[in-house]
Amino acid sequence: MLTIDDVRAAARRLGNRIHRTPVISSQSFDDASGFTVFFKCENLQRAGAFKIRGALNKLLTLTPEERARGVVAFSSGNHAQGVALAARMVGTTAVVCMPKDAPPLKVEATRNYGADIVVYDRHTDDREQVARAVMERTGRVLVPPYDDPAIMAGQGTTALELLEDVPSLDALLTPVGGGGLMAGCSTVARALFPGLQIFGVETETANDTYLSLRRGERVTIPPPPTIADGIRLTTPGALTFPILKSNLTGMLLVSDDEVRAAVRFLALRARIVVEPTGAVPAAAVLGRHLPLERGARVGVVLSGGNIEPSMLIEILKS
Amino acid sequence: MLTIDDVRAAARRLGNRIHRTPVISSQSFDDASGFTVFFKCENLQRAGAFKIRGALNKLLTLTPEERARGVVAFSSGNHAQGVALAARMVGTTAVVCMPKDAPPLKVEATRNYGADIVVYDRHTDDREQVARAVMERTGRVLVPPYDDPAIMAGQGTTALELLEDVPSLDALLTPVGGGGLMAGCSTVARALFPGLQIFGVETETANDTYLSLRRGERVTIPPPPTIADGIRLTTPGALTFPILKSNLTGMLLVSDDEVRAAVRFLALRARIVVEPTGAVPAAAVLGRHLPLERGARVGVVLSGGNIEPSMLIEILKS
Repeated sequence: MLTIDDVRAAARRLGNRIHRTPVISSQSFDDASGFTVFFKCENLQRAGAFKIRGALNKLLTLTPEERARGVVAFSSGNHAQGVALAARMVGTTAVVCMPKDAPPLKVEATRNYGADIVVYDRHTDDREQVARAVMERTGRVLVPPYDDPAIMAGQGTTALELLEDVPSLDALLTPVGGGGLMAGCSTVARALFPGLQIFGVETETANDTYLSLRRGERVTIPPPPTIADGIRLTTPGALTFPILKSNLTGMLLVSDDEVRAAVRFLALRARIVVEPTGAVPAAAVLGRHLPLERGARVGVVLSGGNIEPSMLIEILKS
Repeated sequence: MLTIDDVRAAARRLGNRIHRTPVISSQSFDDASGFTVFFKCENLQRAGAFKIRGALNKLLTLTPEERARGVVAFSSGNHAQGVALAARMVGTTAVVCMPKDAPPLKVEATRNYGADIVVYDRHTDDREQVARAVMERTGRVLVPPYDDPAIMAGQGTTALELLEDVPSLDALLTPVGGGGLMAGCSTVARALFPGLQIFGVETETANDTYLSLRRGERVTIPPPPTIADGIRLTTPGALTFPILKSNLTGMLLVSDDEVRAAVRFLALRARIVVEPTGAVPAAAVLGRHLPLERGARVGVVLSGGNIEPSMLIEILKS
């Protein structure tokens, strides 16, 4: 099982190669929500999301021989960019398998960080098999998006920083996709503040972790159509799920419209640009889904800011 | 003349009543500009701009008797909100004289902070006279927008924080309207780092300080039509100008289109929302107006983030 020492080791390893992102607050948001909210701004992280934390930590734990062989990853989104940038930072190469219909912004950014892109068809190809074929052909090391101790430990450094900056929280919220961010963050929070309430947040259609926790075991749902593309997963991770099961106070669900409202509020009132997935926990707070007393001190991880300009404009207009 | 001790006293007075705003960096911005840029995010300050620093410092230096009489200010923009919020914070009342055609967002925010609004006609009324009439009728104390030692000292705390966080800058840039922000910031920078290059930035049509420094005395220009509403002034301040004259390395000018491009870049690539005036110095860096070697370390004050949603959408679409 992951421990806070693994996360502390990751933090030492990452050092100042990545940003210590700011924690900000917004009086407007507090007035609108009734809580005192501290936003951990991973939208301002390198490559625009927390993903660089896990990816770089993983790459820094490879042997020189493994690193020389290069890495491979599959992702349509922020993990792709995180792995591409991390590879460049440690002086190795990355191949990233991305679906044909991945957001152009994310494909372009991944390529700009120097990765080779292998395109596959989401409907006819199995992405793990595509990545595995690259591994077997080239000897590259796979960097999984969440189900890996080094990835979870890296993502956990987000909470380590937040709880160092704001040691008096009543609750901590992060989005839950595969569960890597929450596995790392909840491990830190439980170790440092056993009484802290920890809530994962999903959108209503992407409720695989919500259902799995209720059932007590991993459930698979159909591919969810949610606007929050970073949590469009069908089942929790094999390694992350037991950690979430042991650490979480509960899961909260928000609608896509609540996510849009949160993105709009954060841009126009808190003056930061957050992608839909990154705004999912803020949507839970703003939408009054948090079962806490008014005035409670709530840490909210804004996990990423990589939003297509056209989508940002559409959300601001609505 | 203003000294760094005045600014240090202001910093002690303000304490933690306002945000210590984060300093962020953006690899995309650095790649696009060729410099290493540190953004001081006053768009994330309380009331969305640096103005609360000066306003609150001024109100904290009033005698209890003066404070009891309340304050009055004239402003169509961020100073109005700063004074309104500062008044609420120290437990007094504010009357703010705003032009009939002030941005609705800023009028609404000023009212929400609890200020009484007196509306005047920009074309037929003299705003100083309107404020003076309120002072005489009510005994309220005037809080000037820039030409006041306590205001300048408060604004200077912006640079004090930035230079504490990043003590190795080659240059410092702020927008210049009335000159209060730059008077305070340049006083701090000159005292701490005599070799630092200090540039004020205006838009091409709002070039009153640029012309005044070239002439060596205050020049008055016609009301400028620039998109940067916070620097739509016709002449530098009587108190601020001599300070700028003694401290500045030079003034830089940018076009309105360069300002729009900077607002767009900051929102989509650096993931922060900045109003046009706040993006003026970033526009100078992005537009290659800065006469420094590539790679120079540049501190840029993003002075505010209060942009009308319709304007933000229009800029993002262009």
